[in-house]
Amino acid sequence: MFTDFITILDLVGVAVFAATGGLVASRKEMDLIGFGMMATFTGVGGGTVRDVILDRPVFWVEDHRYLLVCLGIALLLYFFASHVQRRYVVLLWSDAIGLAAFAVLGAQLAREADAGPLIAIVLGMITATFGGLARDLVAGETPLLLKQEIYATAALVSAAVYVVFVDSIGVAPLIAAIGAILTGFAVRAGAILFGWSLPRYKQRAGRIYK
Amino acid sequence: MFTDFITILDLVGVAVFAATGGLVASRKEMDLIGFGMMATFTGVGGGTVRDVILDRPVFWVEDHRYLLVCLGIALLLYFFASHVQRRYVVLLWSDAIGLAAFAVLGAQLAREADAGPLIAIVLGMITATFGGLARDLVAGETPLLLKQEIYATAALVSAAVYVVFVDSIGVAPLIAAIGAILTGFAVRAGAILFGWSLPRYKQRAGRIYK
Amino acid sequence: MFTDFITILDLVGVAVFAATGGLVASRKEMDLIGFGMMATFTGVGGGTVRDVILDRPVFWVEDHRYLLVCLGIALLLYFFASHVQRRYVVLLWSDAIGLAAFAVLGAQLAREADAGPLIAIVLGMITATFGGLARDLVAGETPLLLKQEIYATAALVSAAVYVVFVDSIGVAPLIAAIGAILTGFAVRAGAILFGWSLPRYKQRAGRIYK
Repeated sequence: MFTDFITILDLVGVAVFAATGGLVASRKEMDLIGFGMMATFTGVGGGTVRDVILDRPVFWVEDHRYLLVCLGIALLLYFFASHVQRRYVVLLWSDAIGLAAFAVLGAQLAREADAGPLIAIVLGMITATFGGLARDLVAGETPLLLKQEIYATAALVSAAVYVVFVDSIGVAPLIAAIGAILTGFAVRAGAILFGWSLPRYKQRAGRIYK
Repeated sequence: MFTDFITILDLVGVAVFAATGGLVASRKEMDLIGFGMMATFTGVGGGTVRDVILDRPVFWVEDHRYLLVCLGIALLLYFFASHVQRRYVVLLWSDAIGLAAFAVLGAQLAREADAGPLIAIVLGMITATFGGLARDLVAGETPLLLKQEIYATAALVSAAVYVVFVDSIGVAPLIAAIGAILTGFAVRAGAILFGWSLPRYKQRAGRIYK
Repeated sequence: MFTDFITILDLVGVAVFAATGGLVASRKEMDLIGFGMMATFTGVGGGTVRDVILDRPVFWVEDHRYLLVCLGIALLLYFFASHVQRRYVVLLWSDAIGLAAFAVLGAQLAREADAGPLIAIVLGMITATFGGLARDLVAGETPLLLKQEIYATAALVSAAVYVVFVDSIGVAPLIAAIGAILTGFAVRAGAILFGWSLPRYKQRAGRIYK
């Protein structure tokens, strides 16, 4: 049952990130192939980097359903995105769901590869953030990752809650995963809705940077 | 004989992409080392990503001729690029040849690794487009990949024609490869010469993006 | 003893590159998580690409001290960077130390994987330059790699001196490594202090680029 949950998590994460890629393609007024590429980069990018670092077989090479999901979503968005009012808001929330889900997924796969807790958390963050980072770099947009509000922190919270609950407290993985996703999503939601942010480093007056 | 053809394809693809990297270095007025780096990134970048995803040994680590080709081309261009009139045109056409050749090469290597047809096509596109994407991102130029005319579509056509001809119709690989390269090149040539493009997604009037 | 030296080289390289990532985070006024990410990207980025290309286990997945070093340095810089006068100068010199050390390290690890001399030099350059390149691309800065003065050339000198001394002249690895690091660092120091640069490619008057 936990395995099923992980598979669902994976497909949902790929789908919502693919959708954010397609939405950026619509913003850039790309053609259908551009939609397909942006959806695929974003949907499978983070997991590809994770699998290469863990030296696992890359997930979408093993199972072609992932590519089909990305391409199907690209097709849908190409024809119907213009019917969606306020697409940037949809992008933000889809990205938030994917972020929380992929962070837990990456941490779990790292645990299965016998990585320690710190490394599992970092791989969760990589899985959650690299697809969106690739999306924004390729499209020439300022990475969401670098914007003012909490973003990577939500991925960190998801992955860390999961690892701590499973490894230190001994919670059942399924319960820990659901709790971790909800916590990470709530943190990101707070950032989107209320502009939550961590204190930023401030230059001191009178200090010279150059 | 097909193996020889694949090796030639590979060296030609590396050489023409290396040339496009060197031409961008000339545009940016880099030094000789910059030429070498841009030529190498562009020449071997796409194939490196392909090999890492397929978990094959990276081709240029196995055979140092690929690096020699990239460096030789960088050296030639550093000294003689200024004798070439209308260098951007040379860049566009070299890139078009590399695009068509690498798409077939990537698809064939994926087939050898027992990937399914959809995955083989996607790996063909990655092989064909990632070197140029790295070139443009590192040099801070707008990726050719994102420009208005048909670009990735030509790689898609090359790879798809090859996979369909070999796997579904049973054409001999050599014939299929030549046909696929010519078709993909023709598509890109049409885009360069006549501005061919696919219909782009259009914002609807009155819809709000943000 | 050479093994100890290599381990020290590695930790020092990771630490100084992590520091340059943290300094860029301070320039961008990021939050603490941003500091952690920039420090980690920069500290382990080059070595990650190297290990993936050589198909070795990625070093920081095997040994969590590397991540601890990056995160510790991020924490220190978040709280104390504002006490450092003229931080850009510290960034430049830290980067120069990391550049020379990582070039030798990358070349040595490639040699251990039985790569030929040219490939070892290129992998040294990749190890030395990709962390900083990722740092600059993610932060949206012009890559140091592409700036006017000698940069990649210093990595090339470090790696090449090391490979030639060990493989062709038969110098003891420890001596060769120290000599190579000092030489590479001296070359980069000359570039920082005196603006050393290689002759750049010049457009010819009257030639048409487009």
